[in-house]
This record gives sequence, C-alpha cells and structure tokens, in this order.
Amino acid sequence: MYPKSIQKLVELFSKFPTVGPRTAIRFVFYLIKLDQEKFDELLSSVTDLRKAIKICSFCFNPFEALDDGNLCPICRDISRDKTLLCIVEKEIDLISIEKTKKYKGLYFILGGTISLKKSDSRKIRIEKLKEKIKNSNFQEVIIATNSTTEGETTALLIERELKHLQIKITRLGRGLPIGGELEYADEDTLSSAFEGRK
Amino acid sequence: MYPKSIQKLVELFSKFPTVGPRTAIRFVFYLIKLDQEKFDELLSSVTDLRKAIKICSFCFNPFEALDDGNLCPICRDISRDKTLLCIVEKEIDLISIEKTKKYKGLYFILGGTISLKKSDSRKIRIEKLKEKIKNSNFQEVIIATNSTTEGETTALLIERELKHLQIKITRLGRGLPIGGELEYADEDTLSSAFEGRK
Amino acid sequence: MYPKSIQKLVELFSKFPTVGPRTAIRFVFYLIKLDQEKFDELLSSVTDLRKAIKICSFCFNPFEALDDGNLCPICRDISRDKTLLCIVEKEIDLISIEKTKKYKGLYFILGGTISLKKSDSRKIRIEKLKEKIKNSNFQEVIIATNSTTEGETTALLIERELKHLQIKITRLGRGLPIGGELEYADEDTLSSAFEGRK
Amino acid sequence: MYPKSIQKLVELFSKFPTVGPRTAIRFVFYLIKLDQEKFDELLSSVTDLRKAIKICSFCFNPFEALDDGNLCPICRDISRDKTLLCIVEKEIDLISIEKTKKYKGLYFILGGTISLKKSDSRKIRIEKLKEKIKNSNFQEVIIATNSTTEGETTALLIERELKHLQIKITRLGRGLPIGGELEYADEDTLSSAFEGRK
Repeated sequence: MYPKSIQKLVELFSKFPTVGPRTAIRFVFYLIKLDQEKFDELLSSVTDLRKAIKICSFCFNPFEALDDGNLCPICRDISRDKTLLCIVEKEIDLISIEKTKKYKGLYFILGGTISLKKSDSRKIRIEKLKEKIKNSNFQEVIIATNSTTEGETTALLIERELKHLQIKITRLGRGLPIGGELEYADEDTLSSAFEGRK
Repeated sequence: MYPKSIQKLVELFSKFPTVGPRTAIRFVFYLIKLDQEKFDELLSSVTDLRKAIKICSFCFNPFEALDDGNLCPICRDISRDKTLLCIVEKEIDLISIEKTKKYKGLYFILGGTISLKKSDSRKIRIEKLKEKIKNSNFQEVIIATNSTTEGETTALLIERELKHLQIKITRLGRGLPIGGELEYADEDTLSSAFEGRK
Repeated sequence: MYPKSIQKLVELFSKFPTVGPRTAIRFVFYLIKLDQEKFDELLSSVTDLRKAIKICSFCFNPFEALDDGNLCPICRDISRDKTLLCIVEKEIDLISIEKTKKYKGLYFILGGTISLKKSDSRKIRIEKLKEKIKNSNFQEVIIATNSTTEGETTALLIERELKHLQIKITRLGRGLPIGGELEYADEDTLSSAFEGRK
Repeated sequence: MYPKSIQKLVELFSKFPTVGPRTAIRFVFYLIKLDQEKFDELLSSVTDLRKAIKICSFCFNPFEALDDGNLCPICRDISRDKTLLCIVEKEIDLISIEKTKKYKGLYFILGGTISLKKSDSRKIRIEKLKEKIKNSNFQEVIIATNSTTEGETTALLIERELKHLQIKITRLGRGLPIGGELEYADEDTLSSAFEGRK
C-alpha cells in the first residue's frame, strides 16, 4: 500500500512503546511534513542522545556522562543514604520515586519482570543484583516492583534469592490510593488498608 | 413525547443512582413487557423490602428485623469487638469491609460526606456519632472515609470533633492498590507506599 | 451476605437492562432510604404504568389507552402516510425515528433480532409482520434494523420473507455519521458514503 | 529532572501527533536501550524517508520518487478517471479512501481545515485548489472532508469558493455507519439515513 520507505518506517515506529500501525503512519506523515530545520534538530537530538547517555555501572540508570565516570548522579551523590537500596522494574519507576522526594537511598533497575508462566530469571538482572548487594553494606532492601501479577512474582523471586544474605527486605505499603473509594477497592487492597491504618 | 404514565416513571427512575433518562426509558419498556407474574414478584419484593428492613439504632445499617430488636446483626453479635469503631460514609462501604473478613469491630454509617465549599456538617450524622462514642467504651475509632477530596474533608472534620474525647483515632493506610503501577501512581500515593513499607 | 429481602431484590433489579449486581444493591439502598411519600409515588407510578399502557394491535408500540381503542396514536393518526411501513427492532428505535420528525409513515416493532448462530425467526414477529403487510396497502417497506451483525441478519431474513409480496423494500442509508472522521471509518462505511454522495 | 539530552528529545517527541510527555519519555528510554544495529536502522530509515519522498505537485500526496517526475503514482496513473476530483483534509484520508478500492478519480489534499472562530482560509490550500480546478477538466468535485464541525465549515467554504466554476460539487453520504444503532444515532445522522434509504 505505502511506498517502501514509508512502509519500512511504519514497521520501525510500530515497535515503539504504545505505538500501533495507525499511530506509526501519522508519525511518518509528521516527519515528511516537518521543516528541514526542525527535522535536522530532531535527527541530531537523537544522535546526541546516544552519544551523551551512559548506563550507570551500579544501578543501570541512564545518565548524561560529563566525564569518564561510570556512575550516575544518584549513585555518585555523597548525600544519598548508602545503606538503603530500592529495586525497581524500569527507569521510569525510578523517576516516579525521585519525584516524591521522600526516598534518599540508592536504586537498582531490574530491567523488567519475570512472569509466572516462564519464570526466566535471566531476563532480569538478578545475578547482577546479588553481586551488588554482596559487595555493599545495605541495611534495607526495598523491593518496589509494581503491584501487578508480574511485579509480585518478581518480588517473590527476589525475596527468595536474597533471603540467605540476611538483610532486612521490605515491600511498598499496599492500601487505598489517593482518590480511591472503598466501594470499588478489591478485598486485598482494603485488607491492607486496614492492617496499615495509623 | 412519551405518554404521561411513561414520562412520570422516567422521571422517577432518573433519580435512581447511576440512572439517566436513556436508561430510565429502557427500564420503563422492560416493565411494560414483563410477564404479569414477574411484575407482581417485583412489586411484592419492593413492598416486602420496606416492611422487612429496619435501620439499626446504633450504626444506621439497614437490616432485616426478625423481632422487636433495634440493633442490626453486627451490633448484636457478642463476638464482635466492642472497643473498635469503624466510621464509613455509606452502607455499601460497610459491606465492602465486611467482605474482607479482616475487621471484627463495630461500625457507624455517616450517611454521606461534607464538601469543602459548603461544609454543612448537619448533612452527616456527626452529632449522633459523638453521642454514641460518649456512651460507649471504644479504644480506637477508625475513620474509613473514601480517599477522595470529600472523604478527606469529612475525615478532618471528624478528627477535629472527636479530638477532645481522647480516644485513639486512626485512618486507613494509603499505598499502592493491588494491580497498581509506580509509573501511574500519584506522588502522594507513592510517598505513602514508601512510608508504609514493611 | 445480605438479608433475604435485599438479596431477592438485588436479583430482580439485576435483570433490568444495563444493571449488574453492584448497581442493583445501590438501587436497593436508594429504595430503603427513600421518604415514605416518594416511595409511595414510585410504587403507584409503576402500578399505574401497567394499567395505563396497552400494546398497539397493529405496530406493537406501547401507548396510553384513553378509550377502548387498540391502536396507538401513530397508527390512529389520519395524517400519517399509510403507504409507508418502517420496521424497527424495538420500541426505543421508533422513538429515535419519531424525534427526527422526518418520517411520516407507520411502524412495526419486531421485538428483537435473530442471530446468525440460532436463526430462530420465531423470536421476532415475522409472521405477524407478513400478515399485517398482506392486509394493508403499503407501497414501501423500510427495514430500519440496526447496522449491527444481528440487525443485518434480521434485515436479510425479512427481505427474503417479503420478496414474493412484490412491494418496494428499502434499507436505511449507510454513510459517515455526523462527527465521523474518514481516518477512523471502516471501509464499508466509507464505500457507502462514496456511493451515497450527493 | 532529566539530563539535558533526554529533556530535549522529550520536548521534540511531545510534538509528534498523539504523543504527550509521558509517552515521549518512554520513547527516549526505548531509544537508549535499542541495540546499536537497530538504532542505526531506524536512523537511516528516517534519513532515507526524507530523501526518497517527494510531495506530488498536483495533489500534494507524498510519494516515493523513482525518477525526476513530480507527480505521485495516482496522478500519473492513466487508468484513473481524470474527470473526478476528491478533496480531502489530509494524507491519511486519501489512504482510507484508496483502501475502499471504490474511487478511481484524482485527489487534492487540503492540508488541514479551517475553524469557525478564526476562519483563516490561508491555512489550507484553497487558492492552489482553485488553480488546479481551473486548469483541469473535472466534471465532479467530491468534498470529502470529515463530518466534524471543522470539516463541515471547510466544506462550506470550498463550496462557496468553487460555486462560480459551475462544476458539479458533491459531498459524502451521511448515514448510519456499519455497526451503528438507531438508539444511539443523533437526529441528523438518522434523518440522513432515512433520506438516503435505498
């Protein structure tokens, strides 16, 4: 249907998160009609991104490298609490937590979750995680995976793998979210909200 | 547009919770086409309901009166913990909590919420609540209003009104609900989830 | 969980169109808390409805009977065009068409649709329809079933059944609805819109 | 919050159609984690697109230029009907119509719509359109704008501007879309469906 160069790009854009073929074709038309100047700006920004961004050798958080250092600004920040480690599924979860300004420890990005069906722990950085913990002095490890089935399964695996290290392991509190109504809350959420009352 | 008898019923059904005129007219056509037997069953069930149901004189929970007693089965149940009181906005919230089977105390149904704009505390049973608490021996009062703006405003009012009674007052725990994702959680919910970790 | 009289009514309300158990229980609490005066008004309105409403012996439209007549105001209206018949699935479709004020003929309410799987034509008033058409002088029969799979299947059945009567049979025009966008229109709709251009 | 190179790209992606800041950041993380090979493929595909694609000098449809020609394959196709012109808002509408395989004439892409508030006809290629029509031998001009307020306003403007050229001007048929139900159709759609019955 489409010319080959459009078709090719529709396929590549369709692999972007949340993008389907219908949105992909809109992206292509957007690019076709973009001013040359703005097109060049986009292209160079994408190229710059790959040059500028390194992956932190400790927590796997992408960061803008200013020198030869391999640690991201959070891991490098001497004011952060080095006895606290928060394990998250992905980069954006780290950002969500940072936005709360309530957590002052370090992070570790797992790079995904495992699923019940094919519990392939090699998909996530579980070995790297164990290695980091062994070589550090954490006093509490907070498993901050999502409260989804995959997130919970992953959390259980991590708990099992870290058990013998005898560090305090905690999980995020469950309860009513802001705006939540009792009428629509599931029984587990409501039970947690009761247990966590204060 | 519609015959008078239909129009009248559309108006009355439109006052039912969640029902708009479009649904109301569908209800009317449903009633028109209902078998005589099923129509009579519906009518007598509605009439029976009003005869059978009393409002509990302590907690305001509707219940099926089997004798002359004025207390609902929960308030009457000697195995319930009489030192715990859970304050809810409405009947259905009580049911949601009962379904968790985690709470064994008594309830008090406020009958609604107050809003910030017109903080009319007479809309809810705040005086009745204070009276009940004064005449009982509660050791903890759990304010289980919704986590909405109205629910929070109402909770603050209740806290203020009960302060001088020097009973322990608690609120439901806030946090990630089951199925919740960090990426989509608001900052307050996430902060609460961190504070409530365990 | 609920008292018997509540449970019974939840079951009966759950059979109302669009109503599930969650809404049904809200209806019950609404009824329990209703003022006696308003409750009586509702009850008498429902009773009145069944007394006041007859089903038209020609088109099966419910109407408020003022005398012994068996025809609804539309069928009785001498200004309506007796050569035009519009076949609809249900009462509310008739009302939708009347609201447009563009159609001046008569109606026939089928009472439902047939489905491809179990093409049980006895579910709808197809025999009654044929009988009415034979005994009248219609020059055009408009099949105004929905454009859904069931509606289309039903329309095809009616066309087949009426074929030998050699009356002009028409279907509603297909095309872009008001507010519709080409980008989101399916191919059949768009083809119809092109064919029906003017 | 984000490193500068990420922030910059979030801004640029946020200008893509349907993309907000939340999706933009997910795109950035997707790009950061992409294999070098796949990243290069994406980059070269984007660059190729701009090199390969020309805008048709007649209809403004983007096409893959194989030689020095300035016309897209549709405009160049000798089997297409040169007496029919279909005016659409944007590229994707042309594609939607082509998919129906029902239209065999030429196209003209307006490049947008005008709005009632600021009826700035310079935003769309109305002068170019008039010029093309004057220099061609069209016998019918089909205004295939969306059925939205903006689309209808634009169609009215085009009709006014083309009036004096005394060519037959048509609009897409309005009616029930495939899958549409009478109960939920607005009155104008239903009126059109009745008028367009066949």
